[in-house]
Amino acid sequence: MTAIDLNSDLGEGFGTWPLGDDAAMLALVTSANIACGFHAGDPATLLDTTAGAVERGVRVGAQVGYRDLAGFGRRFIDMTPRDLTADVIYQIGALDGLARARGGRVRYVKPHGALYNTIVHHEGQADAVVDAVRAYDPALPVLGLPGSVFLDAADRAGLRTVAEAFADRGYTPTGTLVPRGEPGAQLTDPDAIAARVVAMVEDGVIPAVDGTRLPVRAETVCVHGDTPGAVAMARTVRAALDGAGIHLRPFT
Amino acid sequence: MTAIDLNSDLGEGFGTWPLGDDAAMLALVTSANIACGFHAGDPATLLDTTAGAVERGVRVGAQVGYRDLAGFGRRFIDMTPRDLTADVIYQIGALDGLARARGGRVRYVKPHGALYNTIVHHEGQADAVVDAVRAYDPALPVLGLPGSVFLDAADRAGLRTVAEAFADRGYTPTGTLVPRGEPGAQLTDPDAIAARVVAMVEDGVIPAVDGTRLPVRAETVCVHGDTPGAVAMARTVRAALDGAGIHLRPFT
Amino acid sequence: MTAIDLNSDLGEGFGTWPLGDDAAMLALVTSANIACGFHAGDPATLLDTTAGAVERGVRVGAQVGYRDLAGFGRRFIDMTPRDLTADVIYQIGALDGLARARGGRVRYVKPHGALYNTIVHHEGQADAVVDAVRAYDPALPVLGLPGSVFLDAADRAGLRTVAEAFADRGYTPTGTLVPRGEPGAQLTDPDAIAARVVAMVEDGVIPAVDGTRLPVRAETVCVHGDTPGAVAMARTVRAALDGAGIHLRPFT
Amino acid sequence: MTAIDLNSDLGEGFGTWPLGDDAAMLALVTSANIACGFHAGDPATLLDTTAGAVERGVRVGAQVGYRDLAGFGRRFIDMTPRDLTADVIYQIGALDGLARARGGRVRYVKPHGALYNTIVHHEGQADAVVDAVRAYDPALPVLGLPGSVFLDAADRAGLRTVAEAFADRGYTPTGTLVPRGEPGAQLTDPDAIAARVVAMVEDGVIPAVDGTRLPVRAETVCVHGDTPGAVAMARTVRAALDGAGIHLRPFT
Repeated sequence: MTAIDLNSDLGEGFGTWPLGDDAAMLALVTSANIACGFHAGDPATLLDTTAGAVERGVRVGAQVGYRDLAGFGRRFIDMTPRDLTADVIYQIGALDGLARARGGRVRYVKPHGALYNTIVHHEGQADAVVDAVRAYDPALPVLGLPGSVFLDAADRAGLRTVAEAFADRGYTPTGTLVPRGEPGAQLTDPDAIAARVVAMVEDGVIPAVDGTRLPVRAETVCVHGDTPGAVAMARTVRAALDGAGIHLRPFT
Repeated sequence: MTAIDLNSDLGEGFGTWPLGDDAAMLALVTSANIACGFHAGDPATLLDTTAGAVERGVRVGAQVGYRDLAGFGRRFIDMTPRDLTADVIYQIGALDGLARARGGRVRYVKPHGALYNTIVHHEGQADAVVDAVRAYDPALPVLGLPGSVFLDAADRAGLRTVAEAFADRGYTPTGTLVPRGEPGAQLTDPDAIAARVVAMVEDGVIPAVDGTRLPVRAETVCVHGDTPGAVAMARTVRAALDGAGIHLRPFT
Repeated sequence: MTAIDLNSDLGEGFGTWPLGDDAAMLALVTSANIACGFHAGDPATLLDTTAGAVERGVRVGAQVGYRDLAGFGRRFIDMTPRDLTADVIYQIGALDGLARARGGRVRYVKPHGALYNTIVHHEGQADAVVDAVRAYDPALPVLGLPGSVFLDAADRAGLRTVAEAFADRGYTPTGTLVPRGEPGAQLTDPDAIAARVVAMVEDGVIPAVDGTRLPVRAETVCVHGDTPGAVAMARTVRAALDGAGIHLRPFT
Repeated sequence: MTAIDLNSDLGEGFGTWPLGDDAAMLALVTSANIACGFHAGDPATLLDTTAGAVERGVRVGAQVGYRDLAGFGRRFIDMTPRDLTADVIYQIGALDGLARARGGRVRYVKPHGALYNTIVHHEGQADAVVDAVRAYDPALPVLGLPGSVFLDAADRAGLRTVAEAFADRGYTPTGTLVPRGEPGAQLTDPDAIAARVVAMVEDGVIPAVDGTRLPVRAETVCVHGDTPGAVAMARTVRAALDGAGIHLRPFT
């Protein structure tokens, strides 16, 4: 029986400001990338979201990012590897503490936003994140883009790497994401997205923007949780996977 | 053979701004209350200080405080217990993560500054800190002022409580600290302070500002690390204890 | 012809997190209490909201608060008067700078949240805010609760004081607000609220929670901008005032 | 009679953490680049430093930077021009408010740290800073590196530009600064630095690291205020200028 993991970014409110519908998304996904307070997520919000994940049996991941509340972690910061390693360890530990307090644990690490995009190609910062995960717990898997400098470095360092695909992002013929703002970067039709995810899981292939059939070996698929219509889209994807007999479960 | 623990607040710089001489203090104390990033302590500084403590065999404690870099955690914030509990768990977890990464662990919790003073009498916030420690790890001891609402609540909740005395602060005849700014609040003569600490350990008695002999049952003595002359004072206290044949070791 | 000013708290998003519908509220109110970055409001949001206010001829006020993004300025912070005065000047100046850049100016000051409530009774902090306004520009009016320590201190210091009433908050028989969380603290029926505001303007009287007819001499009425249904309520209030022939204009 | 302006970075402590000796430097320089709270400078510190500058007749400049206390503004942040413009206006306004409150005004703008270095070549961010200054007050001069994209853009936009030289930094044969960390980047001998500054003012020439005589047309010379020995170095430079009969005065 075919199986896949669905992951989503959660816990991304801050204080009085909510973002997305964590409770609804936790009913749909199998892995929760929970913010760690640097790009989003005050501790009380994070504790609630983590408790919800633990209650529902959704796996908790540490969604680590740049220290940048004003920019939501979406702006590259030219940090030294030394500072970045310390920031990432701090964030994993903080979320792991909240998870422990609610009977869970951090089970993987996924970088957020500009950090995610930067370490697709930036060796110094990619190594810094790898060093942080190894120093914290070398048994923690890391999520990232297949072919990225980050996953390659993590692999060389002996970390378990988990390749990720995006349900609603367009791909170039070479397998990278179409940059935001360019035509085809963002898909919006829930049914088309759902069909695409089912095909990706069943056939290991995804159509690029020019129609090229791209081989994709993802162990987890990211559905966004913070856009208008996010819950409806995730629900459609989930229903399509269920309908196709594809089992939803966390990556192993 | 008589023994005592010496503790000090460390890791209290932030980014480009240093505070105190952590390396020198780590050679003198047996327990390090290391800041957790909310009132002071950027992760890179905390990682270094924690590594230094681990290398020297100094016990690491989480010095948790209000989220208030601008005020160094010295201003009361009227937080809800829910928010405070989450903030404290987050901070313990973050520092514990940094300690794990350097081969150590957080071994106790000591509140900082205005939070320390508030929970001498504020039941809601005292309970919130107790709840945080219990949720994180009920085996973690907490340091505080003997007779405080905090230590009483911690005791009732089954936590190990560690009573603390201050080497360089004046006491009232009822055993509370003379408020800062009042006469006798702050002692400055290193030799007098050292003699006082030796007497406290040997006889279990400390003279109050009016000469009353106060019984004191402290398991640890705090020496400040962030004032001018802090290192010299700690060195004098340490030498006096050594000279009196008092063993320096972490509380058990 | 009778006239009144309607004011509302705006510019209270932060970065990726919106709050309320500033554009809609700017079409309804005559004075905009715009956040200044300490409890809410990143500069880009503030610049947009300020520009919208200037375009519509809505008066711009500096809504100054505690430095507390995580708590949205709703938690008392026991600041020294020296620090509070500096924080308030900084905030007024920052918003005034953004207003100048868009062809406007800050025309009044209204404290936010816990600071607003604190200086109803806290003399040290009330004086600190008064000192800040006087130091920045002694011609700036301040908004506050009638009978508060703050307005009294401002009056003695020669500042123009503007008494404020709240459209949707319950009053005790002595004219203070019913504390949040108690019965009658928060009114929710738009029509009842609108009728209440009209009566307050026409007759100078508002019914307290026990039915007592309270004399009210407010020059401005606050309608909240950040709750669900805020825009609908403000619209209903505005329509009722228009229907009663009451002119809407900024306080003079 | 020959004249020159000496400028220095001041107001760069934050809360409990001091940095440099502002009072001593204010006795030596003629222009003070005062931090604005984003990379350093809490409002109470800024108010004190600004008051000191006003009392001594030292010109106040707004030293604007990235929002990055943890990194002291020394890390490039890939901000959008829209966000950067708003951040810069906010900072100028905030410092100008503090200056007004003490009888002064912001008289010029000098970017700090990574922002300073970035806009030597980054057109989007250079234009964003220029837009901010123009929007706030088109009569405000800007300080920068001769030949930088920033000064060129400011000049085209009609701003008064003030070229700056560095007393203690090495220059390449093409007139750029030797990057920090490379040989010759940082000069440390106070007498040699003082002689170099005198020669620069008298002859308009500075020796590059390879001995090339570089023509320099600076209207102001930066002496650092935050390094060990900063005050002694500034004193030596000042004494050498006085001894050479060079008048110290703010740029016109």
